[in-house]
Amino acid sequence: MFNTVAWKDGAVRLIDQTKLPTEVSYVDCKDVEAVAEGIKSLRVRGAPAIGITAAFGLALAARQITDSSFEPFYKNLLVQCDLLAATRPTAVNLFWAIERMKQLTLSLKDQALDRIRDILLAEANTILEEDISMNHRIGAFGADLIPSGAGVLTHCNAGALATGGYGTALGVIRSAWAKHQNLKIFADETRPVLQGARLTAWELHQDDIPVTLITDNMSGYFMKKGEIQACVVGADRIASNGDAANKIGTYSVAILAKAHDIPFYVAAPTSTVDFDMASGDEIPIEERDPSEVHTIGGKEMTPKGVKIANPAFDVTPAELITKIITEKGIFEPKEIRSAR
Amino acid sequence: MFNTVAWKDGAVRLIDQTKLPTEVSYVDCKDVEAVAEGIKSLRVRGAPAIGITAAFGLALAARQITDSSFEPFYKNLLVQCDLLAATRPTAVNLFWAIERMKQLTLSLKDQALDRIRDILLAEANTILEEDISMNHRIGAFGADLIPSGAGVLTHCNAGALATGGYGTALGVIRSAWAKHQNLKIFADETRPVLQGARLTAWELHQDDIPVTLITDNMSGYFMKKGEIQACVVGADRIASNGDAANKIGTYSVAILAKAHDIPFYVAAPTSTVDFDMASGDEIPIEERDPSEVHTIGGKEMTPKGVKIANPAFDVTPAELITKIITEKGIFEPKEIRSAR
Repeated sequence: MFNTVAWKDGAVRLIDQTKLPTEVSYVDCKDVEAVAEGIKSLRVRGAPAIGITAAFGLALAARQITDSSFEPFYKNLLVQCDLLAATRPTAVNLFWAIERMKQLTLSLKDQALDRIRDILLAEANTILEEDISMNHRIGAFGADLIPSGAGVLTHCNAGALATGGYGTALGVIRSAWAKHQNLKIFADETRPVLQGARLTAWELHQDDIPVTLITDNMSGYFMKKGEIQACVVGADRIASNGDAANKIGTYSVAILAKAHDIPFYVAAPTSTVDFDMASGDEIPIEERDPSEVHTIGGKEMTPKGVKIANPAFDVTPAELITKIITEKGIFEPKEIRSAR
Repeated sequence: MFNTVAWKDGAVRLIDQTKLPTEVSYVDCKDVEAVAEGIKSLRVRGAPAIGITAAFGLALAARQITDSSFEPFYKNLLVQCDLLAATRPTAVNLFWAIERMKQLTLSLKDQALDRIRDILLAEANTILEEDISMNHRIGAFGADLIPSGAGVLTHCNAGALATGGYGTALGVIRSAWAKHQNLKIFADETRPVLQGARLTAWELHQDDIPVTLITDNMSGYFMKKGEIQACVVGADRIASNGDAANKIGTYSVAILAKAHDIPFYVAAPTSTVDFDMASGDEIPIEERDPSEVHTIGGKEMTPKGVKIANPAFDVTPAELITKIITEKGIFEPKEIRSAR
């Protein structure tokens, strides 16, 4: 077993997801800049994992801020919060984790700074442990929605690598597999970064759960053939009306599922719900570097000078989502606000 | 300008599409085996181009069959027909071209063999010239369907590289561009073989027609944003009920177009219509080697041992197709039989 994010010898240790599956290696981030770089460059990705990483990043920052009184300590911590908050705009768990660490720090302002430092590290570990535990609950709730013998499609990676462990969408698939042992799992490869091909296929293969990898443009074909009975994906941010942002291509899968009368499930912890956001239209969509599309495996695939679009996420409207599976239970998308 | 397929110094010269866009090189096929290999390995691809290549392949075969009387000559020619027919199953133009060359040969059975050889080569050149001329007519008919300022999405490559020249879907786009000069062309990259990224983007870029490359899973996103007003694709085989087989992913684009009320056009010469086939359900779908998905740009992207599906085509039912654009005019899909 691997750890996606962990505290190790005074550093934040990440499995380097840019190297998977050909190389299993770890990076030790020894300052907040390295943590921010790890998030930006996708060494760690997936909304819950980004949140956990940011929490550890702030625990690390707290230990490196040498001030001896609260005011300057907190002021310097806020600078590090801003640095982390500027890494990626779409996943709300990043801002959620930063806010949680900030509020905790403020609540401790009368404590000795070394005690605050210890508590912040303990809190980051708690966020990690809570996340794993929530994913097991999400898995247990979600498994009830997957019939024996079903073909199940997932998009991108909402697995152990996207979370503290076990995964959200892959948590549902893991729990359903444990129950039925007869599912047929399909993973979209998920261009441009290939999280499906490189990460989901790797994770499931490690767990001896059989998976069939397909390119993103094949999902309609397999739905039409009757080989898919359920779609399960994660989310990067869910608005309070039930609209859900997730990896680019998720919206297309949801439209295809609807056209084939296949249920489409979003699995995410409630830390992914942005209760203050009215609708998915407000979710900022990150535009990433064209080189992700232009170059694959280090090889240029497109003529130089050709324009490339690279939005990293899209928003699936609530009406295309059959249910949202959280650690608090299963919700109608329109009623996700009641999970607050 | 390049030639996709041509007769050159006693050989069939192909632009090597497996090397594009990073390298523009040609292969000279000096026997039918080399022609068959060129088709199988996608050095030449695209339904019309495959048909033209097969015709040149048989012209080449005729010159290399040394028999001096018609019976053994024809018997040997049929062996070469079978070799070419076994290369790829889905595109009907392959079988159409082989049949045309066979029937012509039979009709010439009382002629001197050298005359037959010359006529077969002339016929292959005629098929090539007819194809280019049909594409210009398809372009002219289709351009009327593309409004000024439209965003136009195409999938795979149905361009000059897929035909004798000018292209079917890209013929429509070229003609519409010539008319309006203000279209926004989107090309899906078209995994696994990346015909969109490598070939369509290259062709349009060569012609100074601006194109935005997107990954296959982005098309729904841009439709929802209102940036796409028409989809135009080619076809590998159209059944007599108007169902159309084309590159994998075409069906998904058609479903997405329908969900966004965007017209979805298929552009193809009538040689792509299989008038004897009742429905698209009968069209054989080629399953290609998993390595096309597994490896990109020579680099392994998926863990070893993971199962991969690689159907190369899918079938879009007639009811999802707004119009079929042919060299004989624009047809309702359900009435394509009247193009016979």
